[in-house]
Amino acid sequence: MKNFKYQNPTKILFGKGQLENLAEEIPSNAKVLLLYGGGSIKKNGIYEQVQEALKPFEVIEFGGIRANPEYSILMQALEIIKSQKISFLLAVGGGSVIDGTKFLSAAAFYKGETPWDLLTQKIASTNALPFGTVLTLPATGSEMNSGAVITRAETKEKLAMGGPALFPKFSILDPQVIRSIPPRQLANGITDAFNHVLEQYITYPVGASLQDRMAESVLQTLIEIAPAVMQDPSDYTAASNFMWSCTMALNGILPLGVPTDWAVHAIGHELTALHGIDHARTLAIIAPSHYRHNFESKKDKLAQYAERVWNITEGTTAAKAQESIVKTEEFFQGLGINTKLSQYTDNYERTAQTIMKRFTERGWTGLGENKNLTPTDVEKIVEMAY
Amino acid sequence: MKNFKYQNPTKILFGKGQLENLAEEIPSNAKVLLLYGGGSIKKNGIYEQVQEALKPFEVIEFGGIRANPEYSILMQALEIIKSQKISFLLAVGGGSVIDGTKFLSAAAFYKGETPWDLLTQKIASTNALPFGTVLTLPATGSEMNSGAVITRAETKEKLAMGGPALFPKFSILDPQVIRSIPPRQLANGITDAFNHVLEQYITYPVGASLQDRMAESVLQTLIEIAPAVMQDPSDYTAASNFMWSCTMALNGILPLGVPTDWAVHAIGHELTALHGIDHARTLAIIAPSHYRHNFESKKDKLAQYAERVWNITEGTTAAKAQESIVKTEEFFQGLGINTKLSQYTDNYERTAQTIMKRFTERGWTGLGENKNLTPTDVEKIVEMAY
Repeated sequence: MKNFKYQNPTKILFGKGQLENLAEEIPSNAKVLLLYGGGSIKKNGIYEQVQEALKPFEVIEFGGIRANPEYSILMQALEIIKSQKISFLLAVGGGSVIDGTKFLSAAAFYKGETPWDLLTQKIASTNALPFGTVLTLPATGSEMNSGAVITRAETKEKLAMGGPALFPKFSILDPQVIRSIPPRQLANGITDAFNHVLEQYITYPVGASLQDRMAESVLQTLIEIAPAVMQDPSDYTAASNFMWSCTMALNGILPLGVPTDWAVHAIGHELTALHGIDHARTLAIIAPSHYRHNFESKKDKLAQYAERVWNITEGTTAAKAQESIVKTEEFFQGLGINTKLSQYTDNYERTAQTIMKRFTERGWTGLGENKNLTPTDVEKIVEMAY
Repeated sequence: MKNFKYQNPTKILFGKGQLENLAEEIPSNAKVLLLYGGGSIKKNGIYEQVQEALKPFEVIEFGGIRANPEYSILMQALEIIKSQKISFLLAVGGGSVIDGTKFLSAAAFYKGETPWDLLTQKIASTNALPFGTVLTLPATGSEMNSGAVITRAETKEKLAMGGPALFPKFSILDPQVIRSIPPRQLANGITDAFNHVLEQYITYPVGASLQDRMAESVLQTLIEIAPAVMQDPSDYTAASNFMWSCTMALNGILPLGVPTDWAVHAIGHELTALHGIDHARTLAIIAPSHYRHNFESKKDKLAQYAERVWNITEGTTAAKAQESIVKTEEFFQGLGINTKLSQYTDNYERTAQTIMKRFTERGWTGLGENKNLTPTDVEKIVEMAY
């Protein structure tokens, strides 16, 4: 097991009706900016509930933070935060609204030239405007971690940021929200969380028995509850396991003491930036060919995954490992997710080359758990995913 | 799944050499009271390392906090905290030293008549003197939670306390400490952590798939690493899994959304107070007869435990459940732990009656996950454990 440090101060309020406790989690006398997305919260009743809970506070609203939160839109919200002297941010939405809020939380206190520095220079935010979240779409885990991903349409870039000040003060998770989420978003959420675990698990063994089992627990649970969630999102037992699995998948418990990969995300972000493919779908496209391309490095963990998660007990290590990749593809496909890049775009050659070029331009440091994947490896992985 | 709230702000520094980072975790200008136990840290080199790390601070020492931390001894430390205007407590030891430090942290700020109120009146501490820990004995999980158990010899009482202010600011966990722990303490540590999980898992099903699997992960890991830890405590892989399992067993992740029991601890504390039996051993004595006495309520979870943790796949639910209790006893016995009360004391009748009488005197509220165990049930469980 590798050395690690861990601290996660986010307070979780989980279950039916937790929105009733919203007001007591926000500092009294706070001037609140309420941030949300495309307006779905106005259809499912959450907007009214939040309005009601926020009555004790002075509240300004900022809607329109869509999937892949856009820098230029967020800069409009930043202007409001500064001019209106906002003291608390409340994100009501999924990962995109929460990520956008994290950017604003950091940007509000950033003294440098332009807040875009936070992304390009990977500045860890140690001082930020406090914020809380009301999660309406389980997927990214952003509700209990300190990371965010921001997109800039102008430059077709999608970059990550974070820092110890960017944990939500609190997150309210009521699994009942799941009943009004469209099937496409449910499938994306399950796929996203599943890939978050794979990135922290399909690497190489370091004798971290407990962390391996914890990762397998999340994968097994997602596999178990996926059919019920897709068939009947008002099934509260399935919904609550889905929601908590998404949070546990990326709240920092799973990667403690183990190597992590994240190459699938790095490549996936480029596919979203270039072609607008849903984030979760880019992961389902890239993960299988990434594992096949880097098979030697990953086969021991893949075989363990095959045995413990997919009950594949026959065959050699390599055979079990290969079979686990097929099972993973079938799992995504079973959710209605296409796992081939050709099902989304026919311009794969240019895609592979563009991604390779971009990584090179940004100052290449090597991807994957061994930091040894070259731009050429990335090009091959993208080609294989076609 | 039941509703839950969760927040755990403790910072964990885990791995080889983390003691080097001690000084930067303590506020500069702190006046530190260094608390420790029976002096084992002076034999294994940790005392010197802590001394070295604490050079930037003004430090006063208080040793002699033994197993089952004693109220009258802690009151001497409280006197020093007040007279010397101590601003930070550092616990270096196992669960007893850390629990004693938590009591002191709360008592230092307590304005009531006597700090014993914190235990008898179950006062939740919301304001306390800050403290950190250096863990030298994995077992209780106290290094990452906000609970403590204090003993008072004068009245033969052992009572629990806690509160949101009683999380350690940081805990340093270096698995290398395990190599100098005597076998008896290693066996106790494994047994203690195992029973912590059972108290949060062997109840009744509520459809919390992820939490069940997380609990099973800790049990499976403890079973896997126990032989290696007992045979060679310098095996770092086994030691690190042992140490992290003990922390994860009681840091608040496992009980989220599920019913918990804790009757085994309630009864076990009385056995320690009456007969001085090691805490972990009281759990190994009581758990099997508790599960047999409350078999109907617990058999579904026991059967799940049988299947997933002990690979018992044949037989009826009841047969599997019964077999899992036998397996649990054998596991403790394999660590050199006697699981029968008669192996510790021959006065079992008086013991059972005394415990029943004490619970009655204290204002009975019912034990177990259904809060329906009567003093008579407790008497029977203790008799069965003979």
